[in-house]
Amino acid sequence: MPCAIAILGASGYTGAELVRIILTHPEMRITALSADRKAGMAMGSVFPFLRSAHLPVLQRIEDIDFACVDLVFCALPHATSQSIINALPRNVKVIDLSADFRLRDTAAYRKWYGKPHDAPGLQAHAVYGLTEFYREEIRAARLVAGTGCNAAAGQYAISPLLRAGVIDPDEIIINLMAGVSGAGRALKENLLHAEVSEGTNAYALGGTHRHLGEFDQEFSSIVGRPVQIQFTPYLVPMNRGILASCHVQGQGGALHTALATAYKAEPFVHVLPLGAAPSTHDVRGSNHVHVGVVADRQEGRAQVIVALDNLTKGSSGQAIQNANLMLGIRETAGLGFAPMFP
Amino acid sequence: MPCAIAILGASGYTGAELVRIILTHPEMRITALSADRKAGMAMGSVFPFLRSAHLPVLQRIEDIDFACVDLVFCALPHATSQSIINALPRNVKVIDLSADFRLRDTAAYRKWYGKPHDAPGLQAHAVYGLTEFYREEIRAARLVAGTGCNAAAGQYAISPLLRAGVIDPDEIIINLMAGVSGAGRALKENLLHAEVSEGTNAYALGGTHRHLGEFDQEFSSIVGRPVQIQFTPYLVPMNRGILASCHVQGQGGALHTALATAYKAEPFVHVLPLGAAPSTHDVRGSNHVHVGVVADRQEGRAQVIVALDNLTKGSSGQAIQNANLMLGIRETAGLGFAPMFP
Amino acid sequence: MPCAIAILGASGYTGAELVRIILTHPEMRITALSADRKAGMAMGSVFPFLRSAHLPVLQRIEDIDFACVDLVFCALPHATSQSIINALPRNVKVIDLSADFRLRDTAAYRKWYGKPHDAPGLQAHAVYGLTEFYREEIRAARLVAGTGCNAAAGQYAISPLLRAGVIDPDEIIINLMAGVSGAGRALKENLLHAEVSEGTNAYALGGTHRHLGEFDQEFSSIVGRPVQIQFTPYLVPMNRGILASCHVQGQGGALHTALATAYKAEPFVHVLPLGAAPSTHDVRGSNHVHVGVVADRQEGRAQVIVALDNLTKGSSGQAIQNANLMLGIRETAGLGFAPMFP
Amino acid sequence: MPCAIAILGASGYTGAELVRIILTHPEMRITALSADRKAGMAMGSVFPFLRSAHLPVLQRIEDIDFACVDLVFCALPHATSQSIINALPRNVKVIDLSADFRLRDTAAYRKWYGKPHDAPGLQAHAVYGLTEFYREEIRAARLVAGTGCNAAAGQYAISPLLRAGVIDPDEIIINLMAGVSGAGRALKENLLHAEVSEGTNAYALGGTHRHLGEFDQEFSSIVGRPVQIQFTPYLVPMNRGILASCHVQGQGGALHTALATAYKAEPFVHVLPLGAAPSTHDVRGSNHVHVGVVADRQEGRAQVIVALDNLTKGSSGQAIQNANLMLGIRETAGLGFAPMFP
Repeated sequence: MPCAIAILGASGYTGAELVRIILTHPEMRITALSADRKAGMAMGSVFPFLRSAHLPVLQRIEDIDFACVDLVFCALPHATSQSIINALPRNVKVIDLSADFRLRDTAAYRKWYGKPHDAPGLQAHAVYGLTEFYREEIRAARLVAGTGCNAAAGQYAISPLLRAGVIDPDEIIINLMAGVSGAGRALKENLLHAEVSEGTNAYALGGTHRHLGEFDQEFSSIVGRPVQIQFTPYLVPMNRGILASCHVQGQGGALHTALATAYKAEPFVHVLPLGAAPSTHDVRGSNHVHVGVVADRQEGRAQVIVALDNLTKGSSGQAIQNANLMLGIRETAGLGFAPMFP
Repeated sequence: MPCAIAILGASGYTGAELVRIILTHPEMRITALSADRKAGMAMGSVFPFLRSAHLPVLQRIEDIDFACVDLVFCALPHATSQSIINALPRNVKVIDLSADFRLRDTAAYRKWYGKPHDAPGLQAHAVYGLTEFYREEIRAARLVAGTGCNAAAGQYAISPLLRAGVIDPDEIIINLMAGVSGAGRALKENLLHAEVSEGTNAYALGGTHRHLGEFDQEFSSIVGRPVQIQFTPYLVPMNRGILASCHVQGQGGALHTALATAYKAEPFVHVLPLGAAPSTHDVRGSNHVHVGVVADRQEGRAQVIVALDNLTKGSSGQAIQNANLMLGIRETAGLGFAPMFP
Repeated sequence: MPCAIAILGASGYTGAELVRIILTHPEMRITALSADRKAGMAMGSVFPFLRSAHLPVLQRIEDIDFACVDLVFCALPHATSQSIINALPRNVKVIDLSADFRLRDTAAYRKWYGKPHDAPGLQAHAVYGLTEFYREEIRAARLVAGTGCNAAAGQYAISPLLRAGVIDPDEIIINLMAGVSGAGRALKENLLHAEVSEGTNAYALGGTHRHLGEFDQEFSSIVGRPVQIQFTPYLVPMNRGILASCHVQGQGGALHTALATAYKAEPFVHVLPLGAAPSTHDVRGSNHVHVGVVADRQEGRAQVIVALDNLTKGSSGQAIQNANLMLGIRETAGLGFAPMFP
Repeated sequence: MPCAIAILGASGYTGAELVRIILTHPEMRITALSADRKAGMAMGSVFPFLRSAHLPVLQRIEDIDFACVDLVFCALPHATSQSIINALPRNVKVIDLSADFRLRDTAAYRKWYGKPHDAPGLQAHAVYGLTEFYREEIRAARLVAGTGCNAAAGQYAISPLLRAGVIDPDEIIINLMAGVSGAGRALKENLLHAEVSEGTNAYALGGTHRHLGEFDQEFSSIVGRPVQIQFTPYLVPMNRGILASCHVQGQGGALHTALATAYKAEPFVHVLPLGAAPSTHDVRGSNHVHVGVVADRQEGRAQVIVALDNLTKGSSGQAIQNANLMLGIRETAGLGFAPMFP
């Protein structure tokens, strides 16, 4: 019998992406969908692309009967998940796609998100959801914090290199081109078609992007001392996709070996031949990650480039991969679909 | 045991779309891929989005052993399929995605394609592949001709209305907005990003588009006398999608009833509530068709709008739906995936 | 000495387009810019593309000294212009880019815009701003109503044909592909990049688009009896551009002659050779209009296609052309710039 | 009397952009246009957006009478300009937009372009065309080499900093997002709309992009010893625009001061307030450059970001600015038009 799934915050892009994937998942069935301001509406009215799917009507969270739910995906905005998850029955497993449980240190949470955490007890027990690096902890967890999509992309490039000791931790620069769906379905002037299409710009300059909290936490933990990187995101006129381009100091060949070794048994992370360039076109709509390594013309300098889909492997696909682990389902179940091209 | 599938012409967009779909099809397995000029290459080199799939190396057609093949998808350019299909062993079932076998009348073929047909014997026996209208013939066929993607979209709007006798057959105007992948992966100036993006234009003006051959054939056959429509396609800056907007003379309500009745048991064709507008956004990457009907402010005039994905329901998804029928597989097998949005 | 220009509502796209054009206009100088909610800000903060221009700081309308202003462009939202223009000193010439003064009949205004008109006295004296058809009235006017951008495109195709009597006034169907800037800088979900790009859909179906009020008024006036057309707009993923495709009943050659004759002395309207297709790519960012005529394969049916830029010839460029006439400046002054391609 | 201008290679994007600009240039008149394979055609047939301009018919170069020409813009493909320019009458001034005369050192030319130079004598006398840094040499030159568009963007960020000695020359990393028109109108699969739109990827990885030859030449010349940078370009789905993002080691404030000082009298280069992010949206279609400086959260590290339009300031606008200098015209003549937005 398939596992019963509830999705809280189903009216955003990550909620819709969860639904898209679960519709062909052999072991999951959606039994509840919430969207407070749209309670009572059909999902196909909020997202007409789901018009022909058979789905529960949108409800308010307090109207959901969690007794019959095996796992909850919480796709609510940042800062709203904490109290809601805190109030869920303890026997329900939870994957939170917001930023609320990503940072283990409450001071770090307060620094990056500007407010004290509402559920510090839960925060301490949440497992960071980067599947490849926390697989066993996720399998055993009750609460998993989905990672930032940018943070995921950067860590796929850098974490195995820090673990292998083949790069200088103090000389890491990440430039990251991001598709517009990463900003969600919010009504902001800078997300209008007329403002996004046909141009590009950097944002969150100078080390102010909140995903730096995750980089700091994870990289420092690997190295065993505080590590700070430089990180700049760029808004690119595309709907989906992240291309993280990382400049590091190290030998291209050694880097390639370290990454190929780290990911050799991974079903979704693929290291390209040395010198090949990944493209977001080649992973769009899928749970796959492409990793490229290039040695620079200058000895001792190299670049690692990672492509993934922010809504899939960067968010909802990652969440389902984690849910599979938490529910004892085959890890790749429901995630075998190919990218869409063109 | 899954059916063994060969794809001829795997280096184009419809070939790649066949592969994308079959990768998660529970009853099909790709055993041969051809691409003459790229023989010897991996499919993942031609289409890096397929890099992580396990697929046969590209071959030349003459090197394929068809003895072990259950069904061949032929995704070769127009005019090249005829002799190749003619040479295939007679026990192999064939779906041709080119225009070569769509027109039953050899004179019509010569008129629209500018050359005599090379396999008129086969042409006479080919079944026109619009699943919803030729389901039983397709089930029994050895050779099915995939329809033109534009021709499919227009027929979904019009054919049931002609059958029901609720519109004037001599007053049909179809305007059709088409995504650029419909033109294939050909190197043409007018398909460059810099020439397509940020603008739109009509093409094949004045009744010169070859898909009119299909409209003429099918609509005349339904009505029982020659019927000619007006048809203009527009190139729109999007990769996938067809929006066929049909102006007809008839009562909106009667039209809606006729279409809802015609498609009520169809798994992939969905008639929206009267007055609702379909969007190509809502079917992208899927095998679904959305049909909308609107009465005009002028009594007796109405509009039927159809949205589908040219590469999926308009071509490769349609082909797989037909292949399911021909191979005795459940008709919807492998085609249940949702559209991708955004 | 250049004429002194004030722009009310400078924080929208048509306001910004007026500024863009006037910056190189040899006979105009911007002396005041208003934007109520952004009063006190620099124009370069609201529109960074104007950062290097020397422009007045944004003001509230009531703080503008109209004594030194020769002409006011009013680019405010629909329904807000009426009382504001009514309050302007009578010696100031005014071009209103909203819909407020386009319909001469107060009943028609109430029907299409859902409220009674606030300045019916002014409305009666406003001149409809389609330059080519109202040139002398515009030259003499104090108040000119800029046309709807879609309404302009359709009239360029149809009005000369009705005047020449070469088409059937009761069989006119206009399908119109519109770029997203036509909807302005409003924060609406359906204008987000993720919702617009990579797809298309019809809107304002069934004869409900407000620009039909203009078509009805102008076409009925030419024919001398009520004329109603069918009109459907489509949102296309491009920022600028309108492609109006008009199906009519008439002889292609006669239509082409009528249009070529009507526009032979026009500086901005260009009739292409019979059979050629205009493209919005070829007029983007310019004040030019391209008109194409095609005879259908069916005798007696034809298509007229018009391409223009909705923000330029459809709105702000048109306004400046009219202002030139009203101010006694050479009609083409400041409007000679070429389209931008690619 | 305006200067007589010939454009060789008018059928490419930079040729068309030269025409677009010169059409409103008060002191230039186009007297000859060449395009060998399209000789005899109207420019409006090759580029329909120029349909309404009055322009000479395309000729073969050998049919042009250079006796009446004041200045030739040579917009031919790389490696073809050398012999053609060598054969021009010596009294004609020349601006070459190809790469043929950018590198002063013949060994460097051979290294980056893979062949010996055909006109080494001319090469030695060509002036590098970055106006702001070679203004006086350009004014006096007979032959000016237009810069690479990427090379221009990077130098606007870096050259003044090297001159001021405020950054470490050995720690410069440039990531550069480039619009697709930079690759020209060539028929290549990776330039098709279906392959470019909705995704991004790096290219010319590891220090292999030819514009590195220009960076090496210019930066080494400033510093007085060999300087090598890291440089990676990315293809972004937009038609025009370059965003060069440069990571350097230095104090943000000092960098901002150095750049503001260097450009304070420049008509086209604008340094934004410290911390502000430039966008390619804000310079599209114009000759303007926006420069932003940001201090990183890590002391001693900073980022300089430059936005320009590759076809205008990066190529054809730059060429016209240089031509103004060479012909004794006001430097900004014909270049005052604002960017196009949206």
